[in-house]
Amino acid sequence: MVKSISAGLLGLGTVGSGVVKIIENHQDKLMHQIGCPVEVKKVLVKNQDKKRDVKIDSYKLTTNVEDVLFDPEIDVIIEVMGGIEQTRDYILTALRNKKHVVTANKDLMALYGSELLTVAAENECDLFYEASVAGGIPILRSLVEGLASDRVTKMMGIVNGTTNFILTKMSKDGRAYEDVLAEAQALGYAESDPTSDVEGLDAARKMTILATLGFSMKIDLDDVRVKGITEITEEDLQYSKQLGYTMKLIGYAHRTGDHVEVSVQPTLLADSHPLASVNDEYNAVYVYGEAVGETMFYGPGAGSMPTATAVVSDLLGVMKNMRLGVNGRSAVAPQYPKQLKLPDQMFSKYFLRIHVKDQVGAFATLTALFSERGVSFEKIIQLPVKDSELAEIVIVTHQASLKDYEEVLQQLNDLEIVKSVKSSYRVEGDGSL
Amino acid sequence: MVKSISAGLLGLGTVGSGVVKIIENHQDKLMHQIGCPVEVKKVLVKNQDKKRDVKIDSYKLTTNVEDVLFDPEIDVIIEVMGGIEQTRDYILTALRNKKHVVTANKDLMALYGSELLTVAAENECDLFYEASVAGGIPILRSLVEGLASDRVTKMMGIVNGTTNFILTKMSKDGRAYEDVLAEAQALGYAESDPTSDVEGLDAARKMTILATLGFSMKIDLDDVRVKGITEITEEDLQYSKQLGYTMKLIGYAHRTGDHVEVSVQPTLLADSHPLASVNDEYNAVYVYGEAVGETMFYGPGAGSMPTATAVVSDLLGVMKNMRLGVNGRSAVAPQYPKQLKLPDQMFSKYFLRIHVKDQVGAFATLTALFSERGVSFEKIIQLPVKDSELAEIVIVTHQASLKDYEEVLQQLNDLEIVKSVKSSYRVEGDGSL
Repeated sequence: MVKSISAGLLGLGTVGSGVVKIIENHQDKLMHQIGCPVEVKKVLVKNQDKKRDVKIDSYKLTTNVEDVLFDPEIDVIIEVMGGIEQTRDYILTALRNKKHVVTANKDLMALYGSELLTVAAENECDLFYEASVAGGIPILRSLVEGLASDRVTKMMGIVNGTTNFILTKMSKDGRAYEDVLAEAQALGYAESDPTSDVEGLDAARKMTILATLGFSMKIDLDDVRVKGITEITEEDLQYSKQLGYTMKLIGYAHRTGDHVEVSVQPTLLADSHPLASVNDEYNAVYVYGEAVGETMFYGPGAGSMPTATAVVSDLLGVMKNMRLGVNGRSAVAPQYPKQLKLPDQMFSKYFLRIHVKDQVGAFATLTALFSERGVSFEKIIQLPVKDSELAEIVIVTHQASLKDYEEVLQQLNDLEIVKSVKSSYRVEGDGSL
Repeated sequence: MVKSISAGLLGLGTVGSGVVKIIENHQDKLMHQIGCPVEVKKVLVKNQDKKRDVKIDSYKLTTNVEDVLFDPEIDVIIEVMGGIEQTRDYILTALRNKKHVVTANKDLMALYGSELLTVAAENECDLFYEASVAGGIPILRSLVEGLASDRVTKMMGIVNGTTNFILTKMSKDGRAYEDVLAEAQALGYAESDPTSDVEGLDAARKMTILATLGFSMKIDLDDVRVKGITEITEEDLQYSKQLGYTMKLIGYAHRTGDHVEVSVQPTLLADSHPLASVNDEYNAVYVYGEAVGETMFYGPGAGSMPTATAVVSDLLGVMKNMRLGVNGRSAVAPQYPKQLKLPDQMFSKYFLRIHVKDQVGAFATLTALFSERGVSFEKIIQLPVKDSELAEIVIVTHQASLKDYEEVLQQLNDLEIVKSVKSSYRVEGDGSL
């Protein structure tokens, strides 16, 4: 009979502090579920003397990672320090020392998840990472267990809170990107260098993890086509609204037959879509399964306590497995070889805003170009551009292949009557105009 | 090494047919996860010769339950026949014969869940019932595992698709209850006798199961205060809309300290609440945890394939446990003794619509009555009632205890100026007027 279970923490920042608090505040509940106490025994920190808003005995803090990784009494390593290469080494060392690992590190899992899971299995250790995607939402568990019997064909995620906050404020209050970004930074929702969020890289990492699990196929970060939100204008948002759509940064993963595509890009979502009303810093993942149909999982995507909830729930999973003696048996290797769709296999509707010279025959020239490529129009708005000789044309296409659509885009730029292609986005669902 | 796993089905109706289809269609995925084939070996049916829309060898069908329950080769019994007393006997027999059980039966679990789980544990058998609440949404798993480390303080569920369909159509199209009910019956969303749905009993059963798990406290069906949707009028829905609310039949489970309350009742939800945009026959469960904050789980609440997905995912759980030799170890007995709130411990805002005689001093009399009981007004609308000497008064109160509010209601009925109390509902969140 195990008398108590000890965890070692790597990192005591935002998430680490939350983990310590939950283990302390919910000790009764944890004990009830696993039948013995849980203790945080050692914590790797950068600075032992730093003032912290969490109560922890100072003798538990160390600046030497070996005190945590090699402590024979520590059963589980909780990695909440972030970083990639060095952190990978720490986790590999922990696993090879037969210590289970719980991590919240999406960057690491997106890049080295497959390697780490293999080493974990070889050492009969658990490696859980629920917190790495969509913080407080138990989405990985839902994919792996709740929908285990189904065949997932589509996942769409609002998996970055910063960009969702920015787009919500821009849409609702008609404010400019730079203005809202500054507010998000002031509120702590955006980093001082927001590149990874606003350029879509953070979301792409999470989609790598989701697609790998949902499609049971090893998807790499390089497989994800990525476009961020920095070029979205107030005009784009106004037209979205007018057409019955809401602009969101959507991580999109779609399977047709044995081939998949994964992207992160600003998308016009029909207002009636469940994701369209996910606002502010909230995250949500929409999953379509052949048998179950539409499901959606909604919650806080980041933050100290929500992310820590996912970490400690994973810790509980490890501890339950310890009590049953079945650690290292739950990960399932990908079932399918990776097969990516080619651009002529990816179909979507698109929104396109262009400025053309306002002259006789301009529209006919455009129409001819699109119809040559078999790209047809679902909706069109044409308006004069103030104080200019230009007309603004907004088009929502019917379903077209990415190959055809990109050729149309290319040729548009070459047309003499086209002043500029102002913007172009994926469209999901039917708007209302 | 297990060579194959055999399941026996009790029932081959809507859900049972879905289970057979998923096991056949997704055999590759199931095998990949558990490493051996799964077979449906015997099926209890009422009529062996009935034409069915599912392919199954006729020799597998039987009208004798013992052929299923006592087949030594059957490892898992899947109960999708419905019913209560006799079905309970079957499941008890199965468990005592060391057969694991997966059930989709909310009626049974709401009434006998506690007994059945105890017998399952005594026999080292799994008893899983994800499909009993909110069909295709893996909500029980999310509560038990994903949010295992958190303390859930509030759950609100749209857990009955029939009533959500009816209320959505009434709200959006301004149609009358009877009219929409007839459509729902024609579409197969409502039974010919819709009582259990429209009076809230079906939702109450599901809330019993959710509250028991979420609060780790054995909640009985009798503990749930229940009010259905049959008295909701078009006027109520119009005022809701005007005040920035959406009317939903909400299963409400709330914990304050160690005391809980559980109810099912029509509720005015602020339009901004995530549940407010859950429409048509869809279900969703909103869970508030101390650490995680707001989460919501959305999906189809019923239907052959969605419900069957939950059943087969449970079956997979049983099979994984079989391979690991850890069946019958995952259920956790309630941690807390049942403590229900008294009416003076239940707080809410309320919507109230009354007809009063349109005479001098009427409003002052009303105001005095409310303020005596400490129930204050957040919003008031007063309008004359057409072709009468009456005025219609609509009130949204601030937070008040149920005790105070019910006394106000009682005394209103006794007031000479009050013609009638037309309607009264719980209110959740802030509207927009």
